[in-house]
Amino acid sequence: MAEAAQADWLAVEWLDGHLSVWAMQGSAVLDSCEGAASVDSLESFIDALSSLTADLQVPRRLPVFVAGLPVTWSEATPRPVPCDAIAPDTVAVKTESFDLQIIPGLRQREPSGLLQGAETRIAGFLSLNKDWDGVICLPGATSVWAQISAGEVVSFQSFLTGELIAILGAEGPAPKDTALDDTAFDEALSDGLSRPERLAGRLASLRADRALGEMPGPTAQARLAGTLIGAELAAARAYWLGQTLAVIGPEAEASLYMRALAQQGAPATQADAKRMALAGICAVRRGKAD
Amino acid sequence: MAEAAQADWLAVEWLDGHLSVWAMQGSAVLDSCEGAASVDSLESFIDALSSLTADLQVPRRLPVFVAGLPVTWSEATPRPVPCDAIAPDTVAVKTESFDLQIIPGLRQREPSGLLQGAETRIAGFLSLNKDWDGVICLPGATSVWAQISAGEVVSFQSFLTGELIAILGAEGPAPKDTALDDTAFDEALSDGLSRPERLAGRLASLRADRALGEMPGPTAQARLAGTLIGAELAAARAYWLGQTLAVIGPEAEASLYMRALAQQGAPATQADAKRMALAGICAVRRGKAD
Repeated sequence: MAEAAQADWLAVEWLDGHLSVWAMQGSAVLDSCEGAASVDSLESFIDALSSLTADLQVPRRLPVFVAGLPVTWSEATPRPVPCDAIAPDTVAVKTESFDLQIIPGLRQREPSGLLQGAETRIAGFLSLNKDWDGVICLPGATSVWAQISAGEVVSFQSFLTGELIAILGAEGPAPKDTALDDTAFDEALSDGLSRPERLAGRLASLRADRALGEMPGPTAQARLAGTLIGAELAAARAYWLGQTLAVIGPEAEASLYMRALAQQGAPATQADAKRMALAGICAVRRGKAD
Repeated sequence: MAEAAQADWLAVEWLDGHLSVWAMQGSAVLDSCEGAASVDSLESFIDALSSLTADLQVPRRLPVFVAGLPVTWSEATPRPVPCDAIAPDTVAVKTESFDLQIIPGLRQREPSGLLQGAETRIAGFLSLNKDWDGVICLPGATSVWAQISAGEVVSFQSFLTGELIAILGAEGPAPKDTALDDTAFDEALSDGLSRPERLAGRLASLRADRALGEMPGPTAQARLAGTLIGAELAAARAYWLGQTLAVIGPEAEASLYMRALAQQGAPATQADAKRMALAGICAVRRGKAD
């Protein structure tokens, strides 16, 4: 029986409550797995990682390059922007099970901001698209708009849009598997963009329609997303107007932003979030090895 | 042993997850009790009411005038505005334990809105302040601005402000029992009022500051409340600018709105939420008896 190829390191992303793991041999992916994980400390992160990788039969104390760990657990001080998109170094934390190499996040003073995971997706995109200048939009629980120039993250702005959609949408029946109501999304988007200050009022109106059972779930969900993304586009206008744009995110969320931007005459390149995360982790590891 | 006075009806308000009960004899309050209640149907409401009133030793099938029941359980069709502030009629629902008289809510088409409980607090305020014209602000999980003229609710506008403060504030240490950081509240309020479209971005900045542990809990909570109430005041400007104003709400929330309005040169009368609720329920009952 031929011996299976043996992983010599793991690439790991922890973001938005979701753990993604790639078993790597050099730059080749041998295997991967992912899952939701309830994690609130470095210890519980190690537990979740051990449990998720049990089937991969990786040796103990394998090097693990990990993106997205909250600064409060990891002691990996976030790097202040502007700075190189690809982290030049990692913070080593040895545990019984794994030798962690923690990729630090990014910190901005004004407006106050913190990236914990998104920065590595950005690094991945730039490692695959050399000399790309423009603005990258990263939808997620917290959406991020990052201005990129000469391989550096110059500035960024975050919005709680995704989390608000999840919290406020959870009240109604979840229409996740049904098609989006495009018309309702487009109308709410246009309305949210032109009168963003009415956001909290619109959310209350949506709530009323739901309480009265007068709006189908998918329509309500589309209006909720359109309203919140519209308000975000209004506030982030300086980031996308007249810029070269890329959207990196999970397919469902990214497609909403692509649609919204296209309607404003601002077409964007779309890139897959997981693929960018892996490329970013690999780029950081390569940089360290150099 | 003298016989205790016997209640001949109950006044009940269910609002924001909180059940308030007054045991009444005519217009006199014999006793009262209140508590948080997890209620999601008419049956569970009856259970919660039975449990809360067990100590009051009220007879079975007592008449109960109740405000705040969601339309989906009660079949009490909300009344369309504009309409009399004091509901002229109730919807009778007989159960094994109580004879309910359900006070209907208010419905507005454009912008879509629904009041389920706030309308009775408004009715109470107007029953105590005859011929009062102006705008009543009712802070709560959903805050409401209602325009009152000649005893009618002409129009209203709701905002999810209170619920967003609760959801987003729950992340940090709860500073409920500590004093508000006035300076942080005032700054965030002013900022929220002047640039309401930046709301989702400001919430993300607050999140970043908390994640970095760089902001004390009370300061973060004050900034959160100031930001959201500022954005609400911006959107509700037509409701408060140059108007006679009253604020009806729980003390903690009402005092934030009083402070915010005073800073805009718009002083308001403050009235206690529970007292107005009871007065409103009594007014509806009196109207029915006439």
